Amino acid sequence: MIEKNYLNDKRIEVVCIGSELLYNRVNTDINIISGIITRAGFFISRCIIVGDAKEEIKDAIEEALKRSKVIFITGGLGPTSDDITREAVAELVKKKLVFSEEIWEKIYERFYSRGIKEIPEINKRQAYIIEGAEVLENTVGTAPGMILKEAGKTLILLPGPPAELIPMVEEWTKKLKDTSKTEIKVYRFGISGVTESSVEEKIYRFFSEKGIKYTILASPQLIEILIASRGEFKDIHIVEGFLRENFSENYLGIDPPPLPVLIGNLLKEKRLKIAIAESCTGGLAGKLLTDIPGSSEYFQGSFVVYSNILKKRILGVPKTVLKKHGAVSEECALYMAKGAKKKGKADISISITGIAGPSGGSKEKPVGLVYIGIGLPKNKFHIHKFIFPGNRERIRERSAYQAFELLRKYLNEK
Amino acid sequence: MIEKNYLNDKRIEVVCIGSELLYNRVNTDINIISGIITRAGFFISRCIIVGDAKEEIKDAIEEALKRSKVIFITGGLGPTSDDITREAVAELVKKKLVFSEEIWEKIYERFYSRGIKEIPEINKRQAYIIEGAEVLENTVGTAPGMILKEAGKTLILLPGPPAELIPMVEEWTKKLKDTSKTEIKVYRFGISGVTESSVEEKIYRFFSEKGIKYTILASPQLIEILIASRGEFKDIHIVEGFLRENFSENYLGIDPPPLPVLIGNLLKEKRLKIAIAESCTGGLAGKLLTDIPGSSEYFQGSFVVYSNILKKRILGVPKTVLKKHGAVSEECALYMAKGAKKKGKADISISITGIAGPSGGSKEKPVGLVYIGIGLPKNKFHIHKFIFPGNRERIRERSAYQAFELLRKYLNEK
Repeated sequence: MIEKNYLNDKRIEVVCIGSELLYNRVNTDINIISGIITRAGFFISRCIIVGDAKEEIKDAIEEALKRSKVIFITGGLGPTSDDITREAVAELVKKKLVFSEEIWEKIYERFYSRGIKEIPEINKRQAYIIEGAEVLENTVGTAPGMILKEAGKTLILLPGPPAELIPMVEEWTKKLKDTSKTEIKVYRFGISGVTESSVEEKIYRFFSEKGIKYTILASPQLIEILIASRGEFKDIHIVEGFLRENFSENYLGIDPPPLPVLIGNLLKEKRLKIAIAESCTGGLAGKLLTDIPGSSEYFQGSFVVYSNILKKRILGVPKTVLKKHGAVSEECALYMAKGAKKKGKADISISITGIAGPSGGSKEKPVGLVYIGIGLPKNKFHIHKFIFPGNRERIRERSAYQAFELLRKYLNEK
Repeated sequence: MIEKNYLNDKRIEVVCIGSELLYNRVNTDINIISGIITRAGFFISRCIIVGDAKEEIKDAIEEALKRSKVIFITGGLGPTSDDITREAVAELVKKKLVFSEEIWEKIYERFYSRGIKEIPEINKRQAYIIEGAEVLENTVGTAPGMILKEAGKTLILLPGPPAELIPMVEEWTKKLKDTSKTEIKVYRFGISGVTESSVEEKIYRFFSEKGIKYTILASPQLIEILIASRGEFKDIHIVEGFLRENFSENYLGIDPPPLPVLIGNLLKEKRLKIAIAESCTGGLAGKLLTDIPGSSEYFQGSFVVYSNILKKRILGVPKTVLKKHGAVSEECALYMAKGAKKKGKADISISITGIAGPSGGSKEKPVGLVYIGIGLPKNKFHIHKFIFPGNRERIRERSAYQAFELLRKYLNEK
């Protein structure tokens, strides 16, 4: 494990504010901030989530200030009465809130340009700035960000919506990187199609012997090994050689893009078009490929044939196949891949059919059983069988990413 | 605002452990735990996320113990060397870790029944229990949970994967609810198709005057007003009457299920089948409907016609429409809804076509422009135009939920 901040004394924490984050809203701010600052060699040591209660907010920030040099604070900068981050921080650092005519004009203009002539009075709250704070302009929404320096510590107030905070965090990171005396580099080595524990088992001894500190990070699509280094990492070739030897084509190299981007790049490069046939994933595979702007260049579409009647009518899966082998079978996956390629006017196809559960499983066909088909040029088709663990959501996610991973390998082969 | 714990002295915090949560893995444990315990009248006051570093974990739990009665601790119970929650908590409460033959047997059996005869030695770590802890059996995975009572405080150690922790949290909540002297009820009033600030503007004065404390929670699909009450909430009819009057058909009632479930129930009730035609959402609408187990009863499938050639060939959108009006137009949405209904062998259809950005917008057709079509029985079609704010992800999400919301209204009409 990396001891998170052994490379710098800028211990960083994030405080996320919003009652909905303690309830039904998933918090992605921490991941977004982390993604940006990690690339510049900074790590987050802790994240605290609190609701819209002033004393709770003040207490959380006060505690974080005792431990850390830099505190990102996200959320609670909106116009409604439960947006109280401005007030809480001002009270905590014992500063006044001052009304900024300049910011009010910008908010006014933003509404006006959208054709809204009567600006809600409550939006005036967003024009108040903590005395002495540097303002971070919001180019997307109405709430400005603020940087506040107090006794060697830095508080960075950011709006909660990702689109609004990303440019602000990027600006801050860029500035800090430029003024940083010692350049810290983070190397991300990507491995796909294997489990976290199997990676750990293979690398643990080797890395320990070499005295290389690392962190393993697992996501549904990828295992990453992170190594931080002050300046150039001199053992990079040794590590790459070791990973290539042990994980062969599963090793994705340094700083690999997400799988849907990787596949998109391969398809663009080879000028190939792809179509998908999905059953148990219900549209997830298409959704993931089209998360990428510009995917229309290679993505024709997806046939979400959830019912058997559409498997037959739209993709031409023979009635006898469905009757004899069922919709979750090697044969059905093959016909789906064939149908998607033909009807989708594509060079490449993916098909996914399985049992995502929680019900619908049997002894012969348990929940988690998934067949994935890959259609390639020259009428080549490959079908793979998997049994994925986990719940419905996890099985669907694994199915889609496993299909992408298989396709990546086939595309690299030829 | 609800002062989160004014109704009970059981202040609750959650500590989530895992370096990946401070990096690229989104944390949903907090939302899952919250969702379960809120139904029983308990609220989470704070959530702390730390990486796999022992001193950091110990410090975070120690601080939480000073503030709160109950601490949920999730993650870090796996078998690999960076799973150190057991050790950290044992050190903190100054207890030993003891090997449990009984648990080891259960882990052994779990592997064996999956056909794995050689159980990895590292899994033995999961059979160690903190002295004096009550064991929570894991019916899904290998890591058992633990409940530890110390000086009037309760520590609940849970595995990180949602499927594994849900049954444990439910069991704990059920027990606590049964023994609780004063029953606390939480009422969730749902409103859809409106913004958070417009809800706040409408309800603020009324609720203040009545002295009713509330929390507004916003998610992409729904605005919720939460009211907690000791025993029966006597003003429930006044609140319902007010909401119905002010939000008419947008008011969803008390404890509304998620929109995809609501739609599914309506379709089942009316014995109608649905098919979707998606362009800019790329499969997201189908994915959301099939998140619901059993959706095959009413969901035929989705035609993700991302390219114009598939819009023509699969759904029969006329060439002249695409040429004259473009793929993002009222006319195209109409033909897509017609095509989906016909080709999808469905009674009901949804079509979504728009510009999700970040590029592809123009002055006439800006990023965020989305047309949604709804196809109903008796050859009735309705097309609606929207301009959604936000980034690509937000626009796609809003498009799908807005389509569901429109369909809900039409299904309720007839």
